[in-house]
Amino acid sequence: MTPAGSPPPGDLLARYRAGDLRALARAVTLAEAGLPGARPLLRAARERTARQGGRAVVLGVTGSPGSGKSTLTDALIATLRARGQRVAVLAVDPSSPYSGGAILGDRIRMLRHHADSGVFVRSLASRGALGGLSARTMSVLALLEGAGFDWVILETVGVGQSEVDVAAACDHTLLVLTPAGGDGVQAFKAGIMEIADVIAVNKADLPGAERTVRELMAAQGLGAHDEHTWMAPIRRTVAARAEGTDTLIEAVEAHRAHLGEAGLLARREARAEFEVRSLVQERLLRLARERSGDLYARVARGELSADEAADTLLEQS
Amino acid sequence: MTPAGSPPPGDLLARYRAGDLRALARAVTLAEAGLPGARPLLRAARERTARQGGRAVVLGVTGSPGSGKSTLTDALIATLRARGQRVAVLAVDPSSPYSGGAILGDRIRMLRHHADSGVFVRSLASRGALGGLSARTMSVLALLEGAGFDWVILETVGVGQSEVDVAAACDHTLLVLTPAGGDGVQAFKAGIMEIADVIAVNKADLPGAERTVRELMAAQGLGAHDEHTWMAPIRRTVAARAEGTDTLIEAVEAHRAHLGEAGLLARREARAEFEVRSLVQERLLRLARERSGDLYARVARGELSADEAADTLLEQS
Repeated sequence: MTPAGSPPPGDLLARYRAGDLRALARAVTLAEAGLPGARPLLRAARERTARQGGRAVVLGVTGSPGSGKSTLTDALIATLRARGQRVAVLAVDPSSPYSGGAILGDRIRMLRHHADSGVFVRSLASRGALGGLSARTMSVLALLEGAGFDWVILETVGVGQSEVDVAAACDHTLLVLTPAGGDGVQAFKAGIMEIADVIAVNKADLPGAERTVRELMAAQGLGAHDEHTWMAPIRRTVAARAEGTDTLIEAVEAHRAHLGEAGLLARREARAEFEVRSLVQERLLRLARERSGDLYARVARGELSADEAADTLLEQS
Repeated sequence: MTPAGSPPPGDLLARYRAGDLRALARAVTLAEAGLPGARPLLRAARERTARQGGRAVVLGVTGSPGSGKSTLTDALIATLRARGQRVAVLAVDPSSPYSGGAILGDRIRMLRHHADSGVFVRSLASRGALGGLSARTMSVLALLEGAGFDWVILETVGVGQSEVDVAAACDHTLLVLTPAGGDGVQAFKAGIMEIADVIAVNKADLPGAERTVRELMAAQGLGAHDEHTWMAPIRRTVAARAEGTDTLIEAVEAHRAHLGEAGLLARREARAEFEVRSLVQERLLRLARERSGDLYARVARGELSADEAADTLLEQS
């Protein structure tokens, strides 16, 4: 698989460690493909992250299709760059179990940062065995986090398991809503507001923005809280005009300060747990595929209970 | 746990087999709690389903919050009852990972069928270990399917993993959209249209309904298809006035005819696979919880790779 002109692995590791973006791109490709060559790179990434106490702000951005997540992420890149911050973005579209998720057109805009060595953007269309983020996506995120960026943004469409997964995979979660279609009330009803550390009401120049903000604040007031509870700040943005990104960044930084060292460490343990469990699940699903034989047909015919079939698969593992 | 006045298990089984709705309700409670007493009932349910060649129409109903799924399901009950069909409904709200999903208020309407012995309605707020439908929900569905109903409807809010799961758990999937907020385009972008066997454009008396139908048809035309491809019929409904339910029922029946015996059998094997896998995953997650010790903290500290931690958990299983 290695093209004739590609560098030897040792060189790749050294270049990745030195922050070479082309080496990072190659490392991401190896990790995405699940190739063994990614392992030393992943180890180096984690060692650096641990050594630096997780310096990078790892921000998940989620929201329903059409909320303007990609445009907002693009605007965040520009604002962070203006502050001298180096930014990596991983855009994932794991939502479609059938198409494999490939509607990345909205993200083309981000490619304008291509020539900027302080920005790294990568799109993945992979999805987890269970419809959410895959363990490989977690590996790619770890590579970005260990590559010396100040901010690492994981952007994913808020459909399917992925929006819960984003919260499990990142230090901070930004939920992007719009004034359209009762987005706020629906987010509340769907239990999605609870994963948000910061909420952006994007397209805030549209009618209904104020009402959406009020509804969200009312919904927040309904939850149990005391003086230690983090209430996700609600910020108005107009991503297409890059308005409001400063206040968003400040809200994320405020959440980081709220977490403190202990809170951040707890989040990182939870992230590690999520990644390990994703790996375990993917391996077991592969095993189940290889070993199931006619088990499922027998359950469908009523010859075997689902419990007995599960026992059979687990005994073989 | 058994109240003093409850019947002995043997009697429960006989009464469940005889189609007694109170026995069914008790069986559902046992299955939902994962109690061993549910096993003989589940076996009886599966045997009956297999013996009858899966006579019941098992229909999944999904759609975003606010699309009117519950109202539409209620209207479907009324229309099916007018045709002399016996109907069971399982309403599941597995979407919220934090609240446990309990916003079932919209479903109160269905309770008006309480006195009708041809209708059985049950709400579950349980969710799977992975955010979607739980293996226990699948057990409850199997109990309903084996209880002699003509239609079994699984209604779940289309958020999180649950909408993909609904398609995996049922014979037919009805996707409920509305003219509001570009629902159609968003469903397409999110890859959700592909799980639909029938599409209802509900609230079709609102402005934009025709446009939504046209957009959906255009989106369908984009997909690869030939003369054997099932193109999900798109039907306009106004659930609040019980309009359009007849055409929906006919569309589901048309899909059943399209599947044929072989297609239905394949769906049932896929459903069995989904159920067994859910069980395997839930058991393994429990094992992982019990045995993880400080594994995740070590991964977070960079002392262990996620791969090595996954190996450790799998070796112990």
